[in-house]
Amino acid sequence: MVAKKKSKSSSAISSEATAPSLRGGDVPGFLFSGVSAGIKGKRKKDLAMIVSEVPAKAVACFTTNRLKAAPVLYGQSVIRKGVLQAVVVNSGNANAVTGPQGLKHVKQTAQAAARLLKINSDQVLVSSTGKIGVPLPVEKILEALPKACAALGPQNLLEALRAIQTTDRTLKLHQVRGEYQGKPFHVTGLAKGAGMIEPNMATMLAYVLTDVDLPLGAMKKLFRRIVGETFNSITVDGDQSTNDTALLLANGSSGLRLTTRSPAWKPWETALFEVCDSLATQMILDGEGATKAVTIEVQGARNDASARRVAYAIGRSQLVKTAFFGEDPNWGRVFCALGYSGETFDPSCVDIFYGPVALVRRGLPVGSGQELKAHKVMKNQRFTVLVHLNQGKGSARILTSDLTYEYVKINAEYRT
Amino acid sequence: MVAKKKSKSSSAISSEATAPSLRGGDVPGFLFSGVSAGIKGKRKKDLAMIVSEVPAKAVACFTTNRLKAAPVLYGQSVIRKGVLQAVVVNSGNANAVTGPQGLKHVKQTAQAAARLLKINSDQVLVSSTGKIGVPLPVEKILEALPKACAALGPQNLLEALRAIQTTDRTLKLHQVRGEYQGKPFHVTGLAKGAGMIEPNMATMLAYVLTDVDLPLGAMKKLFRRIVGETFNSITVDGDQSTNDTALLLANGSSGLRLTTRSPAWKPWETALFEVCDSLATQMILDGEGATKAVTIEVQGARNDASARRVAYAIGRSQLVKTAFFGEDPNWGRVFCALGYSGETFDPSCVDIFYGPVALVRRGLPVGSGQELKAHKVMKNQRFTVLVHLNQGKGSARILTSDLTYEYVKINAEYRT
Repeated sequence: MVAKKKSKSSSAISSEATAPSLRGGDVPGFLFSGVSAGIKGKRKKDLAMIVSEVPAKAVACFTTNRLKAAPVLYGQSVIRKGVLQAVVVNSGNANAVTGPQGLKHVKQTAQAAARLLKINSDQVLVSSTGKIGVPLPVEKILEALPKACAALGPQNLLEALRAIQTTDRTLKLHQVRGEYQGKPFHVTGLAKGAGMIEPNMATMLAYVLTDVDLPLGAMKKLFRRIVGETFNSITVDGDQSTNDTALLLANGSSGLRLTTRSPAWKPWETALFEVCDSLATQMILDGEGATKAVTIEVQGARNDASARRVAYAIGRSQLVKTAFFGEDPNWGRVFCALGYSGETFDPSCVDIFYGPVALVRRGLPVGSGQELKAHKVMKNQRFTVLVHLNQGKGSARILTSDLTYEYVKINAEYRT
Repeated sequence: MVAKKKSKSSSAISSEATAPSLRGGDVPGFLFSGVSAGIKGKRKKDLAMIVSEVPAKAVACFTTNRLKAAPVLYGQSVIRKGVLQAVVVNSGNANAVTGPQGLKHVKQTAQAAARLLKINSDQVLVSSTGKIGVPLPVEKILEALPKACAALGPQNLLEALRAIQTTDRTLKLHQVRGEYQGKPFHVTGLAKGAGMIEPNMATMLAYVLTDVDLPLGAMKKLFRRIVGETFNSITVDGDQSTNDTALLLANGSSGLRLTTRSPAWKPWETALFEVCDSLATQMILDGEGATKAVTIEVQGARNDASARRVAYAIGRSQLVKTAFFGEDPNWGRVFCALGYSGETFDPSCVDIFYGPVALVRRGLPVGSGQELKAHKVMKNQRFTVLVHLNQGKGSARILTSDLTYEYVKINAEYRT
């Protein structure tokens, strides 16, 4: 039997103000840099690099949008071998709808980075986020890459994080440090993504780094599941941007070699989930102008898929979301969205709760005294709306945000 | 051969300011009234009646929402015979999610109106719009019905129209007067409905009245088609309120008896379409806070159904709609919505036009000079975004609106 000794500490920052207390270097074997290439103007950081000191096992989930940006098309090919050593990310330009020229620019970027790092260019992933349909100013990137490489260091994680922002108001970072038999292991995630209200153009980029080693197949299976339960639960089915990318790199620097049967597998898996879940929640709370993160939980559906469709119908309803913003326990809008979700249910069996407060029981309103209590629940930044259909065992949970004045402001004025 | 003599004049009002020039009485054989029953407070009109002097042929389209309000459930049964003589509409309370009691209240209302009008209660349709989940204050309606009946007159159309409003900012009315062989015929539509951005709780009620007589079967077929092309083209598939109702009454008062083979059928059909199309457009422009009505036209899809799904993906995208508000020719958001519509297409075949201005040709942006031109197109209150997939003959058109600060304001503060 293995003697288990586990201590875990986790930290998350959601704003730059708390950032100085955090340093990169918490992920052994990874180097970072963030510089200005001039894509977003002279001063703003817009070019990031993440480099593993040794080739790392790599799995990725890309956007399901049929319109894939050039770096995603390229990424899909380089990820096949399951090994990467560097990631180059630019913000300010998505290199999407840029045709064959766009793809050429991705390759030029990868090759230049590879040359500078003295690695293979098929071990470089490139990501882009920003305006679409504008040719990538690749010459600016090529010119800035030597500077980005020179700046690489374990302490520059936040510089890299800053360089991948677009309309984000918060820096999204979550780090977990675990220990197994005296050996520490790390999982660190950095991400960008706002506008999750309808994230079709709000590219989500998430890079999760760990210093364990593990079999590629198991790593791929686990990451896909966790991405489904976290990042893909804040998006409306199919509503993905042209550039969405979630990447997991495992470089083995800790010396810990895991298999699914290792006793250390579970703590590591838990850490990975915690990081992805935290990043997803941070994105929701940064949903352009969002002031609340609301969990929509559906229970008692015919099956899980049905529950998910109901949850999305509710979670994407603009009227439900504006009522969240107004802290108005308008369960009628929730019920109505349920009604047009396309799913079969018996209205007279439906229960609706806001937090612990029942507003609808067996299809009928409980009373206006309850609404006052529910209004108090809604004053919180986070709460849960539970819809129970009482007809089966299917369930689903998604995260959504409120819809605010700020949302309209940001998105109406994004380019003009 | 029939000597054709046709003169047609049409009129539409979209605001109360222009209303005084219009009078009821333009629809021979129909009487109207609008009074206050005290549901929306003491002064506000909230109870309307529309009565035909003789039993009228009647067809209706009701909401497809699974959660149907009591008056809709009742309406589905009384419409079966195809004959109605009166409509009672209250605003301020939707009588939805009110259980068996709600249904009892509808019957009480219909019976009381029938008694007063000395007609059968199964020839009375009841509609409700307003808050859901609150018991209908039926005693107020029963008390006000004698007053409403006493006020009935051909000149009170606008009073009735005022009484069915909720968050509407404009009175929606469109009247067409036609003539066939010296005999005039009329089609008049009155409607309420705003918040069409996502109309799930914004009940649409439309009553279209005509003084011709025609076969019930043909009337039903035609009205369903026209409702599909007008009222149902401003809603996102399936996103319907609990109370949506579109009714067509034909009372034959003009003495004109039409069949589909009558030479007068086509002019009458055209008038009916014009009325429904105008009401639908007025609703879009009154979409809570909306400042623009935008046609999304999709051509060259695999088939019409596919084109329709693409059009809806674009037309419901919050980011596309906020860009309309910002007059930002952000075709990237249109392209991206196309990408996640779930439909198959080749990105390199896509053309996108804003009005006559091409922004994307064969999948690539045309250039920034064009964007300035498109920006000018977007300064209009109405314009068309055309997406050509160049892969088939399927096409579809829907109407959508922009998403504004005002929308969030109205919907966040609706009840609180």
